[in-house]
Amino acid sequence: MMKKLLLGIWMVPCMAFAQQPSDSLLIKQISDDVLTNGKSYTLLHQLTKQIGGRLTGSPQFMKAVLWGQQAMKDMGADTVYLQACRVPHWVRGGKDAATVVQMNGRKVKKSLSVTALGNSLGTKPGGITAQVLAVRDFAELEAHQAEAKGKIVFFNYPFNPTYIIPGRAYGESGAYRRNGAAIAAKYGAVGIVIRSLSGSTDNYAHTGVMAYNDSLPKIPAAALGLQDADSLFAWCQRMPVQLHLETHGYFLPDTIGYNVIGVLKGTELPQQYITVGGHLDSWDEGEGAHDDGAGVVQTMEVMRAFKAVGYRPKHSIHFVLFANEENGLRGGNEYARVAAMQTDQPIFALESDEGGFTPRGFGCSTSPEKLAALRSWIPLLQPYGTDKIAAGGGGADIGPLARHFNIPACGLMPDNQRYFDIHHTKADVFEAVNKRELLLGAINMAGLVYLVDKYF
Amino acid sequence: MMKKLLLGIWMVPCMAFAQQPSDSLLIKQISDDVLTNGKSYTLLHQLTKQIGGRLTGSPQFMKAVLWGQQAMKDMGADTVYLQACRVPHWVRGGKDAATVVQMNGRKVKKSLSVTALGNSLGTKPGGITAQVLAVRDFAELEAHQAEAKGKIVFFNYPFNPTYIIPGRAYGESGAYRRNGAAIAAKYGAVGIVIRSLSGSTDNYAHTGVMAYNDSLPKIPAAALGLQDADSLFAWCQRMPVQLHLETHGYFLPDTIGYNVIGVLKGTELPQQYITVGGHLDSWDEGEGAHDDGAGVVQTMEVMRAFKAVGYRPKHSIHFVLFANEENGLRGGNEYARVAAMQTDQPIFALESDEGGFTPRGFGCSTSPEKLAALRSWIPLLQPYGTDKIAAGGGGADIGPLARHFNIPACGLMPDNQRYFDIHHTKADVFEAVNKRELLLGAINMAGLVYLVDKYF
Repeated sequence: MMKKLLLGIWMVPCMAFAQQPSDSLLIKQISDDVLTNGKSYTLLHQLTKQIGGRLTGSPQFMKAVLWGQQAMKDMGADTVYLQACRVPHWVRGGKDAATVVQMNGRKVKKSLSVTALGNSLGTKPGGITAQVLAVRDFAELEAHQAEAKGKIVFFNYPFNPTYIIPGRAYGESGAYRRNGAAIAAKYGAVGIVIRSLSGSTDNYAHTGVMAYNDSLPKIPAAALGLQDADSLFAWCQRMPVQLHLETHGYFLPDTIGYNVIGVLKGTELPQQYITVGGHLDSWDEGEGAHDDGAGVVQTMEVMRAFKAVGYRPKHSIHFVLFANEENGLRGGNEYARVAAMQTDQPIFALESDEGGFTPRGFGCSTSPEKLAALRSWIPLLQPYGTDKIAAGGGGADIGPLARHFNIPACGLMPDNQRYFDIHHTKADVFEAVNKRELLLGAINMAGLVYLVDKYF
Repeated sequence: MMKKLLLGIWMVPCMAFAQQPSDSLLIKQISDDVLTNGKSYTLLHQLTKQIGGRLTGSPQFMKAVLWGQQAMKDMGADTVYLQACRVPHWVRGGKDAATVVQMNGRKVKKSLSVTALGNSLGTKPGGITAQVLAVRDFAELEAHQAEAKGKIVFFNYPFNPTYIIPGRAYGESGAYRRNGAAIAAKYGAVGIVIRSLSGSTDNYAHTGVMAYNDSLPKIPAAALGLQDADSLFAWCQRMPVQLHLETHGYFLPDTIGYNVIGVLKGTELPQQYITVGGHLDSWDEGEGAHDDGAGVVQTMEVMRAFKAVGYRPKHSIHFVLFANEENGLRGGNEYARVAAMQTDQPIFALESDEGGFTPRGFGCSTSPEKLAALRSWIPLLQPYGTDKIAAGGGGADIGPLARHFNIPACGLMPDNQRYFDIHHTKADVFEAVNKRELLLGAINMAGLVYLVDKYF
């Protein structure tokens, strides 16, 4: 009985708390250092204000690559290198415009807040003018498919306010942004506008990636601000409405993008590595501050903090600023492809791509056993905000790596009630990020990476 | 053994989960209704934009009283009444100014971001000019007490960035705002300026209440923005610096304030009541949006939601918009004094006064047994943000009631990383409040009140 009891006590610490006093001390040291000497807020200022929005293929993205490389060198990475990958090169091409030009047969001129969807092709020069067919969802379009020919279809699918996790509403309404143009084209529509994927109280238009069906006409596609979507929908319920839509998107030939990879070399198991990252590209509307400047600078902060407190990881750590998350995921795919050809083995991947908001924990896609081990560390991270480690989650960029190697993929889970207010808009700027919230996210990431490095 | 086990199983649900399926359904109904039809964001807009800052004794406070009374009537309260209380009547009296006028014997003119502390008395007309004695803390002033005579003492006590809960830093540095003037006066100082109680990245000056020692001279007292505090401290380290300080605060005779009390009458135990509240007064610098417009409108939202979902509480519920929290606490004291004279008995009190940010739980001052019962409800509230119910906490306004009757006092615990950036400044405006974060706070409050009503 005594022996069994002792074994029982031994087992638990062995899995998780072998050296809890020193663990909590080191995490506290990291926290104190980040909150006192943290550089991520300053780095974010550089990335957003000196460089700005960083669309794949743009000069700004290239500036960001060189900036990230230099910054990680300055932080004392053992090595920093650029991993080239072929990327799509979509350009917005001009100022998007959507104007109601006729209501009930009467000429009007009402400009709407609009943005072309990423990867969409522009209207003909000067734009198109057509009657609007306003529908709430795909089912309503099906029901009215005979009326779609020659019209601009307006998908006004609402962002469900009753979901506590706004990402769930985003997931649901995402189909209209991604597939709306293809489905409307099937019925002969000449363009689409969608209600922006947001529940905000303002009128910013939210861009984001879409895709065509190559066997159907590639019609222009844009998103409207929520207030204007409400107005347009109400007008369309009462009378015929004509919309003038002008967008300019086109593709240049594929070009080269780069994952920026900083490495801290492991002291005991250098051939095994942990990947930590965020994505360096962003949409062009704002400054890509929360999406995903925050993840980029938090990734760099983890490296800086480890150096600052003198923590030398057992495993190697890759700090990766990924290319082309927004409209292609070519950076994440290339990183996984190269990793699969190498001898070194990844053991764990962590991404921050849900905004630089106050941290509440992590979401992890892994086995129940590993999830239980991760959860046993919650008491060590709870003082810094990690109240839970949810099953599921990870990040788009680390997904290909994690799936190929069947390793745990975790994502920082900030409180994201404000995320979809600014996501992919002009409002995603430096000023929308709170310094302490950003730093606290980095602290929780550093704590988790430290524990994985020590105990996995 | 079997009997004991059954009893054990019985005890837990009896205390907490007797009807969990219906409980979770009702809380979900409340949540859906608040997120879809919630009025608190609109009410907050009225309170902040149509009325504005609501200093005790000001016309704006009186407007807010009438507004609150009408709004709770419109929401269908069984009764709404005003509870008068005598309140102090401090007025700012003019535009505060702090200007560095001499550095190292050379004339200069550098205006600093400044605000007089609440309840402080103004300088003589035209202001005072004196050399600055810059110290980090009381100990440093003690060490240099001989130099204080005739000077303006500058307390530059830092807001500790390493505390994860910013309220802890606020508590620590609060002594300089509250007692700095009295302590400096003891050594013959002619005025004080303090570093604002904040860790923000901007330069807003933060007001807040102070108190004099009646047996010492009542010297002027003001707070500086953080950037200017940093500059002034650096200058004072290197050279003699003269500051011109001009403030205008004074007291008018005491006047009358009002707690606005809306009541839903209990269906089974109407003589027992639950108190839910926030404070209606605010500082004058901003609009009192987070502090405590949020608590006011969340309190009203709880009432609205109960009516909307048809929940008729067993106990009576007092929805209280308290007077004079900021510079006297006379509203909370009067509410408790009147309650103590009445037959009706309070059973529980809840306050929201830590900002309208995303909710993370509650802090509750109560017995370990009652705390355990409250914590047993976490699973019912967790879907809406309540990850924890911490020991300790409550609210200033409900404190006198809770202490007199020895009842549990709980405070909504929002994520408050941003709170002390804007607290008591010009930046505490409607735009700083996020609609969903505000509504989610109200949902968790309503859920807790519902559970207390049903099971306490």
